[in-house]
Amino acid sequence: MLPYTLIEKKQSGQALNKDEIRFLVDGYVKKEIPEYQMSAFLMAVYFKGMVAEEINAYIDVILNSGKRIKFNNNNTYYADKHSTGGVGDKVSLILAPLATASGKLKVPMVSGRGLGHSGGTLDKLESIPGFSTQMSLEDFQKQTDRIGCALIGQTADLCPADKMLYALRDVTATVRSIPLICGSILSKKIAEGINGLVLDVKTGNGAFISKYEETKHLAEQLKYFGEAYGLSVRPVISDMNQPLGDKIGNWLEVEESLDVLRGKGPADVRELSLVLTGQMLAMADPKRSEKDIRKELEKLLDNGAAYDAFLRISKEQGADIKYLENPALYPISKHIIEVKSDRKGTISGIDTYQLGLDSIVLGAGRKSLNDTIDPKAGLVVHKHLGDKVEEGEVLITLHTDDQKSAEELNKTISSRFNISENDFTLKGELYEIL
Amino acid sequence: MLPYTLIEKKQSGQALNKDEIRFLVDGYVKKEIPEYQMSAFLMAVYFKGMVAEEINAYIDVILNSGKRIKFNNNNTYYADKHSTGGVGDKVSLILAPLATASGKLKVPMVSGRGLGHSGGTLDKLESIPGFSTQMSLEDFQKQTDRIGCALIGQTADLCPADKMLYALRDVTATVRSIPLICGSILSKKIAEGINGLVLDVKTGNGAFISKYEETKHLAEQLKYFGEAYGLSVRPVISDMNQPLGDKIGNWLEVEESLDVLRGKGPADVRELSLVLTGQMLAMADPKRSEKDIRKELEKLLDNGAAYDAFLRISKEQGADIKYLENPALYPISKHIIEVKSDRKGTISGIDTYQLGLDSIVLGAGRKSLNDTIDPKAGLVVHKHLGDKVEEGEVLITLHTDDQKSAEELNKTISSRFNISENDFTLKGELYEIL
Repeated sequence: MLPYTLIEKKQSGQALNKDEIRFLVDGYVKKEIPEYQMSAFLMAVYFKGMVAEEINAYIDVILNSGKRIKFNNNNTYYADKHSTGGVGDKVSLILAPLATASGKLKVPMVSGRGLGHSGGTLDKLESIPGFSTQMSLEDFQKQTDRIGCALIGQTADLCPADKMLYALRDVTATVRSIPLICGSILSKKIAEGINGLVLDVKTGNGAFISKYEETKHLAEQLKYFGEAYGLSVRPVISDMNQPLGDKIGNWLEVEESLDVLRGKGPADVRELSLVLTGQMLAMADPKRSEKDIRKELEKLLDNGAAYDAFLRISKEQGADIKYLENPALYPISKHIIEVKSDRKGTISGIDTYQLGLDSIVLGAGRKSLNDTIDPKAGLVVHKHLGDKVEEGEVLITLHTDDQKSAEELNKTISSRFNISENDFTLKGELYEIL
Repeated sequence: MLPYTLIEKKQSGQALNKDEIRFLVDGYVKKEIPEYQMSAFLMAVYFKGMVAEEINAYIDVILNSGKRIKFNNNNTYYADKHSTGGVGDKVSLILAPLATASGKLKVPMVSGRGLGHSGGTLDKLESIPGFSTQMSLEDFQKQTDRIGCALIGQTADLCPADKMLYALRDVTATVRSIPLICGSILSKKIAEGINGLVLDVKTGNGAFISKYEETKHLAEQLKYFGEAYGLSVRPVISDMNQPLGDKIGNWLEVEESLDVLRGKGPADVRELSLVLTGQMLAMADPKRSEKDIRKELEKLLDNGAAYDAFLRISKEQGADIKYLENPALYPISKHIIEVKSDRKGTISGIDTYQLGLDSIVLGAGRKSLNDTIDPKAGLVVHKHLGDKVEEGEVLITLHTDDQKSAEELNKTISSRFNISENDFTLKGELYEIL
């Protein structure tokens, strides 16, 4: 078997068999197949796709490149959530402790870092002083069983093929490929040893896949291939045509999550957190009514139980929880700049993707692979779609230590908002459960 | 500028501007852009193509990555021929001395090695004991002016970007892309400092681009972009649905070329050599009639003048010409095996591509990058399209030192021929001049 002929086979639109896919992925992991051939193959997949058998094989080969967790409590339901990535999406930080507080299921969650214009749960958690996201798979499993939840990053022994493929896709513009996304997400989630998976599949101008039809196709494919593995999958398509909530940036998003965990915070973040966590509970106990689940989860947010669970998990993972109890203790950015509107009108469009990139420029993400993140940095959005704005009213606040970037963005960032003279009514729903 | 965004731009079907193309090509040559990003870009070009401005820019950037020859004799016409590659295509070995013998033009020819299923002029020349294809560009230019012709391989200072890009395309299945072919061929030919270029653009099942419409498009594009550079370009589309001539393999093809150079040899090789060389002479002197040119060239083959020119060039480049004068002195393969037909009928199809690969298996080409070639190895085809064959009659003869490969091919190689019970008449012409 030659890598060249397999690239050519995919390039001409033919399907590869499992042995061929294994040859490519394993060869790449063992560094027998060079990166330049793998990237050519990935680009051919981007253009020509994969049929169902290929996607199944691709997931399986990545899954079997590493270890696979097996939980021992057969009476316990293990569930996780995955988001395809957006701007201001801090739902994992709320959902994980909220589901844990319910006591109805356990949450072994393996998260990722910021990618492209999108933030990552791992970077947000690590903005909490002391919070450690690194532990062995054994400790991860033990903590999940002991306190109901553990929040970690991908370990070296969990789908190492995905780690290598992902790094290559990230620099060769081959992230936005449905078969490759399926392989990456599902292999890791299956390896977590969970029973149920809720998927937050983002659509709109701040999502990796912006078109609704493509998003829906991705959601259906993820469900199909996850369930082929015996995993229960509940995809929820959610709108990403504006940032979720008001805050973008690692610590800023922790702050906003704490608000929601204490029964406050922006309505859209609270709502999506209730919906996604509700789906997890519904999978764990299919007989319960949606209404009943909703009522319980609202109570757990409003009575502080979800907040307490977040403190418990954070403490267990080494966090100095005084910052969570009193966010005012956290350092603030050197430059906090309010950017005002130069006109009056109604917000009729927000360039969400660009706001995600703007937050990175301010320090909230990595500009290159080895960059460090400024956990304080980011944006606070004061106006959302459909909101009225007066001339001179604050649209957005920049938080950064980087004066130069702040000055540059101060001039340009208001252009991310379309301000219309006409009224604007938001079309569509925040989410759709498939 | 980021390589990532340029890959994404091409991936989405947008055209890159000249600065962007220069950034990619120069960055790749300087090893600032890694191979895996370049191969992803090349695969995106394979799928999305390039517009005219991009192809112009691509040629120009590759051309300017190295030196460019300038001949000083303004009264002399310099011309070369390039073939897009086929099986048994030894025309360069005949055309170069034939054109030289006419005295009407000079031929500075930079050739390539075998590639994929196709042989290379350089490998064929090097099968002649002592023949050296390496010289400086200065010596190349001097020899061309002194004796009318020089035959070399690509030097380090001639389009180094093409050399690097070609090596990458060769292992990532991105050779068959019209804009990339234009960039590669034309940059090198323009760098040769020639006035006129005859292109032998192969079509059919032994060509890199098999479909006629695509071949024609490639021919037109090569003419268009070459002429945009002030180069006169004459494309000839020629049939590659069967090997050209009878012999495939390096020394075997030298032998057959010697036959043609002495006024003998297979009719198709003689004919195509006369046509292509005729086009070169017609470009050098547009006032001459085709008939007149043809008559002169036939004479130069039949009276030995072309053969003498070949001896002169070979001697100049270090060859031991006793092997050319008496090919029987050349070593022969350990195994010479006649493969016979198991049925009676008419040859109605030949898998030319596969015969090219078969010759490589026997030792006539490289299986991997650092393989050495057996100059004696190859195939002699005894039956062509439309030929009658009897049961037990010889179809093909294998020449090799590799017993194992010979035994394997002995069992399978007759399947490269379709033998039909009905009569078969060849459709179409050997060539078409555009």
